[in-house]
Amino acid sequence: MSKNIDVTLYDVTLRDGSHAIKHCLTKEQIVNYASLADAAGVGVVEVGHGIGLGASSLQIGKSLLADEEMLTLARDCLKSSLLAVHVVPGYATVARDISLAIDCGVDVVRVAAQCTEADTTEQHISYVRGTGRRVFAGLMMAHMISPEMLVQEALKMESYGAECITILDSAGAFLPEDVYKRVSLLVKSLNIPVGFHAHNNLGMAIANSLIAVKAGATIIDGSISGFGGGAGNASIELLAAVFSMEKYSTGVDLYKLLDAADMAEDIFEVLPKITSSSVVSGMSGVVSVFSKPVARAAEIYNVDPRDVFFELGRLGAIAGQEDLIIEVAQNLAEKVVDDA
Amino acid sequence: MSKNIDVTLYDVTLRDGSHAIKHCLTKEQIVNYASLADAAGVGVVEVGHGIGLGASSLQIGKSLLADEEMLTLARDCLKSSLLAVHVVPGYATVARDISLAIDCGVDVVRVAAQCTEADTTEQHISYVRGTGRRVFAGLMMAHMISPEMLVQEALKMESYGAECITILDSAGAFLPEDVYKRVSLLVKSLNIPVGFHAHNNLGMAIANSLIAVKAGATIIDGSISGFGGGAGNASIELLAAVFSMEKYSTGVDLYKLLDAADMAEDIFEVLPKITSSSVVSGMSGVVSVFSKPVARAAEIYNVDPRDVFFELGRLGAIAGQEDLIIEVAQNLAEKVVDDA
Repeated sequence: MSKNIDVTLYDVTLRDGSHAIKHCLTKEQIVNYASLADAAGVGVVEVGHGIGLGASSLQIGKSLLADEEMLTLARDCLKSSLLAVHVVPGYATVARDISLAIDCGVDVVRVAAQCTEADTTEQHISYVRGTGRRVFAGLMMAHMISPEMLVQEALKMESYGAECITILDSAGAFLPEDVYKRVSLLVKSLNIPVGFHAHNNLGMAIANSLIAVKAGATIIDGSISGFGGGAGNASIELLAAVFSMEKYSTGVDLYKLLDAADMAEDIFEVLPKITSSSVVSGMSGVVSVFSKPVARAAEIYNVDPRDVFFELGRLGAIAGQEDLIIEVAQNLAEKVVDDA
Repeated sequence: MSKNIDVTLYDVTLRDGSHAIKHCLTKEQIVNYASLADAAGVGVVEVGHGIGLGASSLQIGKSLLADEEMLTLARDCLKSSLLAVHVVPGYATVARDISLAIDCGVDVVRVAAQCTEADTTEQHISYVRGTGRRVFAGLMMAHMISPEMLVQEALKMESYGAECITILDSAGAFLPEDVYKRVSLLVKSLNIPVGFHAHNNLGMAIANSLIAVKAGATIIDGSISGFGGGAGNASIELLAAVFSMEKYSTGVDLYKLLDAADMAEDIFEVLPKITSSSVVSGMSGVVSVFSKPVARAAEIYNVDPRDVFFELGRLGAIAGQEDLIIEVAQNLAEKVVDDA
């Protein structure tokens, strides 16, 4: 954001992290962590339900606190960091949710869609643009389409008024060369800054974020000690460390961020780790949130859950398509019988 | 090792992992894990005290089991994987330790030295060569010297009869470009295979291992779920996953390795994680084993332990030079007073 900063650290601890604790972020967690991030000089702090504004529901998972309360709590703690909110059209409406977030004093609204669905973001992006707040955009599950197609989707968001485009490796499926290709092409093709959001399923979150910066990205998502969905995000303290080693300024106080990392397990009680199931999620390009329903279906049909994941990957399954799981497990079970 | 394999996975779980549990590997841990690694088809399984053969002592840390017992236990479990032992001249002698390891049936002796000390390995390498067993070589703390100097040291080991040279990023200090430069120059300069051993202090263990392979390395160290010293090694199951995605064959059964990863925490009770102190260790290039004495000295002299680490890094401190810590902490404390 500032002129003296090469890379803005965009902190998703209090949003993506909500996935790690069944969306039950507490008042204390928000206040404690937002204060630490602000004191460390993190550029942007995103707050809310893991799926974003308006997503709290019985089916997706209910937040402990309402959107309004989470945003207001964070607003009071942030003196220098910008307050951001994650918005996915379909969950969040302009009339109900975004206007509420604006009233709560958010500085940045990041409107995100599945990577092929940029069309759905026009109304939301335009609305935020009209309010004078900053509007960022995100393309989720960015590994599912080619770099060229990603550019087409990003150009739409730019035309709607987005001030930057972040590509989200939602399934933690990228290897560094994948990121380099996509980010460098986006940087070349867009007139607005490009960002990157990693997940650590394949242990590549930091390396992928570093190569994104080398490819020209200037906004990088991270969370404290990786606290986030599935195998977690890029650890923001590691991003700060590695970027400083590579002489990219981030404006953060590294020691304060390391202190926050030392407190992370106390604040959030659990920190993400790479499990064998998150590895398979990354390899197959299917989000980790499928792990539990896949395990259940695999048990019912007596098939290997990893085979189910790989087949779902071949079918291009995305969050919301959990119905596919049963079908895939059943087909695999029949195939085993046929092959026998 | 085999002609159909692009990358040999060299498993250091039962050696580097001993650092994570104060060198107290149990009989059950050795038997359980060696059997799993063997069944998964891992190329080489290294077993013993973290510092290697003959290193068990009150000062360094005593092993629960003698070298002979550890090697014999593992020998009985390994049907297809080669059994390897880590040897550092100064701790292990030819007459006492290496001959014992040969008697225990080790297939591979890896003789390692600090990266500037290849000279010390001549006798050990020649001896193993004479026995007909395989002799590998390792250069530890490889970040401390230039790629060109590393080649000079590696050439010495090649001349002594080493069949391959692995460079060890003992402090987890490398970023991918550092690895690429070193490995590609070694591959170009040597007539024997090149290997790489990562630590995950900066979250780069997998990315560094992958780029090592892209630079021509064919032997890559890893351990189950990263179980190893400090922030841990490259997770061998992630190496297998990522290499298979990149079409490098390793000869392992990925599902069996993932199963082993699922059991790792039960077998070893603790798994390594990246702490703020391991980040500083990686950034400063000083091994994590300094963390506790640094913390103690920092408390006594009322200075920031991270400043101590960075100063030790500037001084090029290596394991065994713990005496420097007090001196550095004291100097920093005096500097604070002078500056005041």
